[in-house]
Amino acid sequence: MAGNNRTSWNVRSSDVAKRAHNPIRQIVDKLKVDPQAQKSFISLSVGDPTVFGNFNVDQTANDAIYKQLNTFKHNGYGPAHGTVQARDAIARKFTTPEASLTADDVILTNGCSGALEICINVLCNPGQNILLPRPGFSLYRSLADVKQVEGRYYNLLPEKNWQADLEQMESLIDDNTAAILVNNPSNPCGSVYPKEHLEAILAVAAKHHVPVIADEIYCDLVFEGNTFYPMASLTQDVPILSVGGLAKKWLVPGWRIGWILVQDRHDVFNKEVREGLLNLSQVILGPNSVVQGALDDILHNTPQAFYDETIKQLEHNTKLSLEAVSKIDGLKPVTPQGAMYMMVGIDIEKFKDIESDVDFSSKLVAEENVLCLPGQCFDYPNFIRIVITPPAGSLTEAYERMAQFCARHRK
Amino acid sequence: MAGNNRTSWNVRSSDVAKRAHNPIRQIVDKLKVDPQAQKSFISLSVGDPTVFGNFNVDQTANDAIYKQLNTFKHNGYGPAHGTVQARDAIARKFTTPEASLTADDVILTNGCSGALEICINVLCNPGQNILLPRPGFSLYRSLADVKQVEGRYYNLLPEKNWQADLEQMESLIDDNTAAILVNNPSNPCGSVYPKEHLEAILAVAAKHHVPVIADEIYCDLVFEGNTFYPMASLTQDVPILSVGGLAKKWLVPGWRIGWILVQDRHDVFNKEVREGLLNLSQVILGPNSVVQGALDDILHNTPQAFYDETIKQLEHNTKLSLEAVSKIDGLKPVTPQGAMYMMVGIDIEKFKDIESDVDFSSKLVAEENVLCLPGQCFDYPNFIRIVITPPAGSLTEAYERMAQFCARHRK
Ligand SMILES: Cc1ncc(COP(=O)(O)O)c(C=O)c1O
Ligand SMILES: Cc1ncc(COP(=O)(O)O)c(C=O)c1O
Repeated sequence: MAGNNRTSWNVRSSDVAKRAHNPIRQIVDKLKVDPQAQKSFISLSVGDPTVFGNFNVDQTANDAIYKQLNTFKHNGYGPAHGTVQARDAIARKFTTPEASLTADDVILTNGCSGALEICINVLCNPGQNILLPRPGFSLYRSLADVKQVEGRYYNLLPEKNWQADLEQMESLIDDNTAAILVNNPSNPCGSVYPKEHLEAILAVAAKHHVPVIADEIYCDLVFEGNTFYPMASLTQDVPILSVGGLAKKWLVPGWRIGWILVQDRHDVFNKEVREGLLNLSQVILGPNSVVQGALDDILHNTPQAFYDETIKQLEHNTKLSLEAVSKIDGLKPVTPQGAMYMMVGIDIEKFKDIESDVDFSSKLVAEENVLCLPGQCFDYPNFIRIVITPPAGSLTEAYERMAQFCARHRK
Repeated sequence: MAGNNRTSWNVRSSDVAKRAHNPIRQIVDKLKVDPQAQKSFISLSVGDPTVFGNFNVDQTANDAIYKQLNTFKHNGYGPAHGTVQARDAIARKFTTPEASLTADDVILTNGCSGALEICINVLCNPGQNILLPRPGFSLYRSLADVKQVEGRYYNLLPEKNWQADLEQMESLIDDNTAAILVNNPSNPCGSVYPKEHLEAILAVAAKHHVPVIADEIYCDLVFEGNTFYPMASLTQDVPILSVGGLAKKWLVPGWRIGWILVQDRHDVFNKEVREGLLNLSQVILGPNSVVQGALDDILHNTPQAFYDETIKQLEHNTKLSLEAVSKIDGLKPVTPQGAMYMMVGIDIEKFKDIESDVDFSSKLVAEENVLCLPGQCFDYPNFIRIVITPPAGSLTEAYERMAQFCARHRK
C-alpha cells in the first residue's frame, strides 16, 4: 500500500507564500500607535483618500451601480478580462490621437495591483530583472520578490523634481532586463514628469528594446502648471503596458477595479504577450461585474466639477503642507506636482537623538500620535512620506505637533 | 556603457503566462456555435445560474449594497484579507458546534477561484503533488499547472454516486503529497456525499497526515433526501482549508466574493500556513469593499424563502432532466443529488458516427444549436455535463432536440 512516511502533522507553507510577505510590514510594525495617547491620532500614512470623509466618490457612480443592480443583468460571469462594454468604455476614455485604443486593447483586473501583478508576470521570467524606481511604491518590490524576478533600482533625483537618473538607469540594463517600470505621477514622490523627461526615458527603452510598464494610476491628478502625459502618447516605437484604475482619480480604492491598456503601435506584443495577458487574467477571473456594468457611466458621466474639486482640495492641502513643513528647521519638503503625497527630507545631523527616518516616524507617533511612513518603506532612507489628503484642519494640527517634536529633538 | 545585445523588438511572454492557459479552451474552441443556425441557441454549458433570468439574487442583497454605497464608508482600502465585519459575518454563518470559527479564521478572496488559488499556493511547492478529483472542476488542474504542482487524479465512481475510489486515492499519496482536494457538492457530478464517505476520506487524510482543501462552494444546494456536511464538522484531527463564496448559493458569480475558512482544531496551520495565507492575500488585496460592507445583511438577512425557491427550481429541473434524458437510448444520466449539474454517460457503441464526447458535443451544437460541455473538459471522456439551471421550457426543448439528434445518429 502506498503512502508516505509522515508520523505526525507538520504542514508548512510554500516558498512562494513565504516570499509573498510585504516588505514594509516589518518597518510599519515598529511604529506602534498608542491607544492610550492623550492627543488624537492623525494618520498621514495611508494612500487612501476616503478615510477622512473629505474625498467622496461622485453620486454618479453610486447611482450607476444602483441602476445596474436593479437590472439583474450584471450578476453573472463575464469574460475573464472584462465585459466588452466595460472594456470599450475604458478604451474610449483613454484613447488618444497618437495612441488609439479599442476594447481589444483593454484587460480589466482586480485593482491596479492586479494589473501590475499580471504585467510583471507576463513579461518577466524568474531570474530576469525589472527596472524599478527608487523611491517607489512598495508593491513593485513585493511582486518582483514573489515571482523571483530581480528588482534593479534606478534613482529618482529629489533635486530634479524626482526625475530619473537616466545614465544610471541605462547602466542597469542587460540581456536579462525584461521591463522598465515607470510611475507617473508618482507615489511616494508626488512628481509629475514633463514630456521631455518621459521622452528621454522612452529613448532609453527604445535603444535597448525593453518594453515599459507605465503605472498611471494617478493620471490627471496634477497641479496647476503641470500636465499629465500618458507615456503611450509619446512614442510610436516602445510597446507599453499602461496600468490604471478607479482607485485614485475616482476615489474608490476599495472597489478593486483596475485595468491594463495594451499600447503597441507595431504589434510587438502580438507575438505572445497579448495571449499571455488573457491567459493570466483567466486564473481568478476579473473584477466585480456590477461595477463593470456601471463603468461607462462612471468614466463618461462623472461631471467635470468632481475632478476639479478633487484637484482643488489636493492643491490647497499641498500648499498648506509645504508652507508649514518648510518652516520646520531640520525638515526639507520636496514640492509635489501632483498625486497625493509629499516627500520630506530629514536633516538627521540637526537632531540630537533621531537616528533614522524609521526612528523619526517611530518617535513621532509615540510622542505626538502622528503617523507617517518612513522613507525606508519606499527604499529611500532619511525621508518621510506625508499623505496630503486629510482635511486641512488635521494637517495643520499634525504639522504643529511635528514642529514641536522637531524643536524638542533638535541639537 | 551598459546595455544589452538586442537589435530589434522581440518581447516574449513568460513561461508562467504560457502555462496559465485554460485547458478546456482548446476543447471548447472546437464547439462552434453557428450564428446562422435556424434553431434558437440553448446553452447547457455554463455554470452560471444568472444567464437565463430565472435565478435572481435576492432583493435583500441589492438593498444592502445600495444602503452601504450611500454611507460612503466602504469605498476605501480595508485589510487585504477582508474587513473584520465581513469576516465576522462569514464566521458566524459557517461556525458549527464541532468546528467553531471566528473572524480570525476567515480570509476574503476574489471569488472562490481566488480562494482556491491561494490555498493551492500556500500548501504546495512546485514539484509537489496534490490529489484532485476526476471528473473535476477544470480550474484545479489549471492552478496546479500554473504553479508547477503535479495533479494526481483520484477516481470518482459514477456507479457509486460519484464517491471516491478510496483505495486508488490512497495509492496516489507519497511524501510529496501536499493536499487532497475534495469538492462536495460536486461540479460536474452533482453529487452530495453522505457523512460516512466524507469521514472515510478524512480517515485517509488523517492516516497520511495530508491536509484537505474542501471546495464547498455548492454548500446547501442539495436535494431532498441528501444533507450537506461541511467536512470540518466531521473531524477534529485533519486540518482543512474550506473554500466558498457568494457565487452559487447567493446567485451572484459576477460579484467575485469568495472566502477561505481556516478549520484547524489542533493548530497545525498555526506554524506557517496562517501567515502564508495572509501574505498571499496581500498581493492583490481582497474583493470589493462595498459588497464586504453588505455581507452581513446578505448572509444573515436573506430570507429562507429565497434559498428554498432556488432548491425547488433546481429539483424541478433535475427531475425533468432525468426523465427526459433517461428516455434517450444511448444516454445514461447519473442522478444528481445537488449543485447544478447532471453528468450523462454516452454509450458510444450505440452510435454509428459519434467518436467521442467531444464529437457528440460538437455535432450536437452544429446540428441542434444545443451546447453542453464534453466530459473531457473535466478529464472524463464519454460523458457530457448538462447544466440544469435554464428555464424548464428551454430544457425540455433542448432534450427534444437531443433525442432527435441521438435517433439520427444511432446505429
Ligand atoms: C503607484 C501605485 N500603483 C498602484 C497602486 C494600487 O492601486 P489599486 O488600489 O487599484 O490596487 C497604488 C496604490 O496606492 C499606487 O500608489
Ligand atoms: C467547484 C467550483 N469551485 C469553484 C468555482 C469558482 O467560483 P467563483 O466564481 O466564486 O470563483 C466554481 C465555479 O463554477 C466551481 O464550480
